Amino acid sequence: MRDWQTLIEQMTLEEKAGLCSGENFWRTKAIERLGIPAINLSDGPHGLRAQGEEQDHLGVNDSKPATCFPTAAGLASSWSIERLEQLGAALGDEAQAEGLHVVLGPGANIKRSPLCGRNFEYFSEDPLLSSHLAAAHIRGTQSRGVGSSLKHFVANNQEHRRMSVDARIDERTLREIYLASFEHAVKQAQPWTVMCAYNRVNGDYCSEHRRLLTDILRDEWGFEGVVVSDWGAVNERVPGLEAGMELEMPAPIGERDAQIAAAVREGRLEEAVLDRAVERLLRLIFQAHDARLEQAHFDTEAHHQLARHIARDSMVLLQNDGTLPLTDTQRVAVIGEFAERPRYQGGGSSHVNATRVETLLEALKTRNASFDYTKGFEIDRDAPDQPLEQDAATAASHADVAVLCLGLPERHESEGYDRTHLNLPANQLALIEAVTRAQPNTVVVLANGSPIAMPWAGRVSAILEGYLGGQAVGAALADLLYGEVSPSGKLAETFPRRLEDTPAYLNFPGEGDVVRYGEGIFVGYRHYDTLGTEPLFPFGHGLSYSRFDYANLALSASVYDGQGALTVSCDITNSGEIEASEIVQLYLSDRTQTVPVAEQTLRGFDRVTLAPGETARIELSLTRRDFCWYDAERAEWRLPTGTFEVRIGASSRDIRLSRCLEVQGDETPLPDIDRNTLLGDLQRRDDTTRVLREHLADIADELPMLNGLMGRSGGDDLMDAMGHYLPLRALVSFSSFTEARLETLLKDLGALASP
Amino acid sequence: MRDWQTLIEQMTLEEKAGLCSGENFWRTKAIERLGIPAINLSDGPHGLRAQGEEQDHLGVNDSKPATCFPTAAGLASSWSIERLEQLGAALGDEAQAEGLHVVLGPGANIKRSPLCGRNFEYFSEDPLLSSHLAAAHIRGTQSRGVGSSLKHFVANNQEHRRMSVDARIDERTLREIYLASFEHAVKQAQPWTVMCAYNRVNGDYCSEHRRLLTDILRDEWGFEGVVVSDWGAVNERVPGLEAGMELEMPAPIGERDAQIAAAVREGRLEEAVLDRAVERLLRLIFQAHDARLEQAHFDTEAHHQLARHIARDSMVLLQNDGTLPLTDTQRVAVIGEFAERPRYQGGGSSHVNATRVETLLEALKTRNASFDYTKGFEIDRDAPDQPLEQDAATAASHADVAVLCLGLPERHESEGYDRTHLNLPANQLALIEAVTRAQPNTVVVLANGSPIAMPWAGRVSAILEGYLGGQAVGAALADLLYGEVSPSGKLAETFPRRLEDTPAYLNFPGEGDVVRYGEGIFVGYRHYDTLGTEPLFPFGHGLSYSRFDYANLALSASVYDGQGALTVSCDITNSGEIEASEIVQLYLSDRTQTVPVAEQTLRGFDRVTLAPGETARIELSLTRRDFCWYDAERAEWRLPTGTFEVRIGASSRDIRLSRCLEVQGDETPLPDIDRNTLLGDLQRRDDTTRVLREHLADIADELPMLNGLMGRSGGDDLMDAMGHYLPLRALVSFSSFTEARLETLLKDLGALASP
Repeated sequence: MRDWQTLIEQMTLEEKAGLCSGENFWRTKAIERLGIPAINLSDGPHGLRAQGEEQDHLGVNDSKPATCFPTAAGLASSWSIERLEQLGAALGDEAQAEGLHVVLGPGANIKRSPLCGRNFEYFSEDPLLSSHLAAAHIRGTQSRGVGSSLKHFVANNQEHRRMSVDARIDERTLREIYLASFEHAVKQAQPWTVMCAYNRVNGDYCSEHRRLLTDILRDEWGFEGVVVSDWGAVNERVPGLEAGMELEMPAPIGERDAQIAAAVREGRLEEAVLDRAVERLLRLIFQAHDARLEQAHFDTEAHHQLARHIARDSMVLLQNDGTLPLTDTQRVAVIGEFAERPRYQGGGSSHVNATRVETLLEALKTRNASFDYTKGFEIDRDAPDQPLEQDAATAASHADVAVLCLGLPERHESEGYDRTHLNLPANQLALIEAVTRAQPNTVVVLANGSPIAMPWAGRVSAILEGYLGGQAVGAALADLLYGEVSPSGKLAETFPRRLEDTPAYLNFPGEGDVVRYGEGIFVGYRHYDTLGTEPLFPFGHGLSYSRFDYANLALSASVYDGQGALTVSCDITNSGEIEASEIVQLYLSDRTQTVPVAEQTLRGFDRVTLAPGETARIELSLTRRDFCWYDAERAEWRLPTGTFEVRIGASSRDIRLSRCLEVQGDETPLPDIDRNTLLGDLQRRDDTTRVLREHLADIADELPMLNGLMGRSGGDDLMDAMGHYLPLRALVSFSSFTEARLETLLKDLGALASP
Repeated sequence: MRDWQTLIEQMTLEEKAGLCSGENFWRTKAIERLGIPAINLSDGPHGLRAQGEEQDHLGVNDSKPATCFPTAAGLASSWSIERLEQLGAALGDEAQAEGLHVVLGPGANIKRSPLCGRNFEYFSEDPLLSSHLAAAHIRGTQSRGVGSSLKHFVANNQEHRRMSVDARIDERTLREIYLASFEHAVKQAQPWTVMCAYNRVNGDYCSEHRRLLTDILRDEWGFEGVVVSDWGAVNERVPGLEAGMELEMPAPIGERDAQIAAAVREGRLEEAVLDRAVERLLRLIFQAHDARLEQAHFDTEAHHQLARHIARDSMVLLQNDGTLPLTDTQRVAVIGEFAERPRYQGGGSSHVNATRVETLLEALKTRNASFDYTKGFEIDRDAPDQPLEQDAATAASHADVAVLCLGLPERHESEGYDRTHLNLPANQLALIEAVTRAQPNTVVVLANGSPIAMPWAGRVSAILEGYLGGQAVGAALADLLYGEVSPSGKLAETFPRRLEDTPAYLNFPGEGDVVRYGEGIFVGYRHYDTLGTEPLFPFGHGLSYSRFDYANLALSASVYDGQGALTVSCDITNSGEIEASEIVQLYLSDRTQTVPVAEQTLRGFDRVTLAPGETARIELSLTRRDFCWYDAERAEWRLPTGTFEVRIGASSRDIRLSRCLEVQGDETPLPDIDRNTLLGDLQRRDDTTRVLREHLADIADELPMLNGLMGRSGGDDLMDAMGHYLPLRALVSFSSFTEARLETLLKDLGALASP
């Protein structure tokens, strides 16, 4: 244990200020005279982007070769804690080999709209899934002595005006959805760093948002690491430091360090605040250096194979009439330029210089598949190209089956800007028409980072969603198409029928610099399920080459009072012919709905691999928080009383087992007592009801709306309603009750709060 | 012109304070020594509720007989300025006869959700229609020397917790929807009083909301009358007075007067504020008294016939396969208790003691129609009653046609509480099943104040929406059913297929005391049309027994620059066999959409009655405001540049004619200049672009995202996007640009604002 205090005392004010920002685009400042080393940070949720000695001031030049794994959108579809840990560990190994100390990722932002250009880097529309996968990613990386940077904290849910937009989010939604997606990852995996987002939240820039960076992240969640700015996210440096943002990146030409030092000198910034930041930075720097491995290296081929295995687990078979898997005897027409020029990663800061790329064509050659290839369309153009389509249709008509490799070109989907529609380019749509007219057995393989509309889904036999599959994408696709392994991925996001059905449609990307999260907590499947809107493919959906039976749902108790854990268990049997993995999902549905809630909410999941005929007992654990809603008025998680349905599903729309559970929730809290407290709110507790009755007995005859309170039969719906919705102050308006008596009543009610 | 100043000077502080609240439930305080009379106020948007000498302290006892006209929901379906003026005038005449000075109404609240229990008292989901009808109502009443009270100002869009709920509405939505529904009526008709609502808006009670009551209502709109509280709406009296709420009703037992006087004495309230309120009150009181007619009376029978004519124009033929109109030779099975016990008005404060009530059965007898009546169901119960259904089915099977009189019982729909679903009671649903099985020609006649779901619509031949048709409801229904006149009403609100499709579904009625207007401007048809959601019956829909052709759309100009008026004209021809009225609707659709806007917006309407073969030329006028959106950031109405489609429709979903128009909008305003101004926003004007180029020329080589600004071919979508979304401050993060240079740039840009 180092003596941080002594070290800090040895530092000059300028040295301390200087530690709070980078030396260049990727590195902190060393202070050699005190033996304080620099640390290197690098992009990389799904692959490193270490620029090594070729660094440029914007970090845009080519980086050193690294393994490119599938991006988060695909990763999330694996629902695999194990795979995420493996991937995180592999990144850690590569980082050690490249001399990097912190890898910038994973991204836990919620997919609020499928239009967000950076969705490919995020996991899910569901905070539980997102946060658990992020935690696994972090655990993996940090198990190798390399830090993670959980990003972008918080509500960076669009690229449009991302550096200035103010996300206006009500507190309950912020807590239940957007913060929740970070909360578990922070608490459970304790990332070395958290990266603050570019945007503002309810008025303040995230980079200077004390409530987010200090009150919630540190004080409530116990975060012990360093907050780093997204690159260029700092608005005003000194308020940022005070709010809890320690490290500004990249290097802002020394201006900021001077600002910090001047603020201390002029008494505008307490030196203790700077010292606190410096101590956190020193802890990070030395933690990173202590964990450095000498002569670390990584096995390129092993990582490539890991990328292939992860990709296989991540792809989602959306639709299949039995055309898949293909057999070796079939003659296959492979169509679409993505087969030779795969889109396997996203555009922007996460762009990896892959160690190698295995295309579908290469993979098919490797397995000696019987296929012909035609281009069908050009990725770099959108306009239909009849000669290419004609060639493709001809090839398709000569084959037993057509495999159409389609997707979004990178220019359609990137960090930095959002999509404005969900469509494939016109040339690909025309190609689908041409090919499906020529060949009834058409399989579509998709490369895209977020959902597309598929008005053509009914015309094709099978759809395999490959997402952005990483550098081994071709091999993984071939493995799945030919049934080497069964597809097992399930959607971590809803595929809508049309853009207008998406939750944020009316509020995305906002007006000017304001984006209102008007849909509130109803994000993703919470929206579709609550509104009864039919999605194209629901959250949690994914097909297999095998079949799974669900049976014997059991709860460890039939009543839950918020103490300890409740165990939910069931049997899953592989009743098909081949080994396969199943992703089991647990949803809770609050049937009592004391407050507005979504139709159902994911509260647990498991992924299990089973041989044919094999049965596994799944056990999932529910705790208090899983049943709670966030009461913004009281700033606490509240356990409601009522009936919950525990649902076990193969997807959000394929519930296989369910059982009801009674929850004995928290006591009804004493409402805030003032002139505007409603009579009805006071009748939810015995003590307040008693006080009311005592004070109002003598005026009850004047006010028929008090019949309910007095236990008389009312029978007048309007008066009964008024008896609930009447503020105490209105007693004075409507009866002989006086202001003086109102004050006495308020005093007696208030006394109940402090017994 | 009285000398108000002198009169006020003669008043004691207590007298002045006393004038600011009622003497009892319905009357202000007279000050006899100064010759200041009292005035009487009474409920009554569609009929008076004058309690005369039988007043009780809650105003709930029976009132004196008065004509009960159709409620606002039906009235609005007439889209008839003329009818609304006639109704207003009739109310004025009755008020004169009863010695009333101010009639509390009309209600211009927007129908945000069909669940709102008081929707029957409001006009529409569209602010233009609502505000124009309200203005006509006010003009009518005030033409008789009786004041109106435009209510409930503002955003009282639900009954749930109406006295405490805080409506959280963004400024643009407030301006374009909720305030707009009052704005025209205030500006055009200058109501003697405006009634403030119970609820809060964005934190403050309407009764003490200075921005609403003074800044907007008086200073912006020029309101010259008195603001009166909704009965019991006052929270704190003194801040209310300061905010611009002059008259508290009902009488709060003298407590408030003492509070006001004490506040003046203790220096907490400027006496000038009180004097200003007193002057406004005196002007109202004497205006009312000066307009009193001696020995006024009204013609009960004439008003009953007016109620009948208005009801005929207000009912909406929703569906008809030709079964309607009925003929005198047909044998009709009339089924449903509403035929003998009509629901013709709403529950709550607007409840009128009608001079007489004409039921459908009476009206059918009067015209010697050939019919049998069976009860079918009991209004006072919800549970199915098989014997009644069986009788009804038998009667139906013996007739040529069945007329089913259905609707919402009053307990389902009332002031004071909201509905929780859109369904008819179970007994009526069962009855529809039973009757339609027995009789293929079934006509449904509905009595309800707001939309119901109609999963049974496909089973019946015709649906006539009678709304709450007033005391002559039976005669009006008979007139329409037998084709004495053609139905001509059109919906002033969308009928949704299901509750989940309604705009506010996820945000109604809120959580605790907060209701977020998350759907923003997308209320009513703006929501359905923008999302492409199919309604059950769209806004503006209504069938006729005749047919209308639309032709020869012409615009007075093909380009509009916001100056003066643009005239839209077209020909409407009655191409059917009988005289009938058509409601012509003008919608604008902004095709350029520089900001998020609804698919289309109602901007004009006309109602024309035509003999068979007759053609009329309709002329509608558009002015600047019709094309504008409210720019909340700059607090002004902005005229966008772009293409608008002018649409003429028989309903919002039955557009008959359309033509494009180019709008030359306001100059792009200079953005607010600060460190966070975006490069892209500065490139929308020549002057700011020029300054940017000058200052950034020498660092352009460092920043590929500046290529666009510098007029170089970019080609990198990510960099182009960053070049738009980059705040000025980030130049310092990403280039050698210094804080000092940034300050100079900001100064030069700022100088453009003040030339």
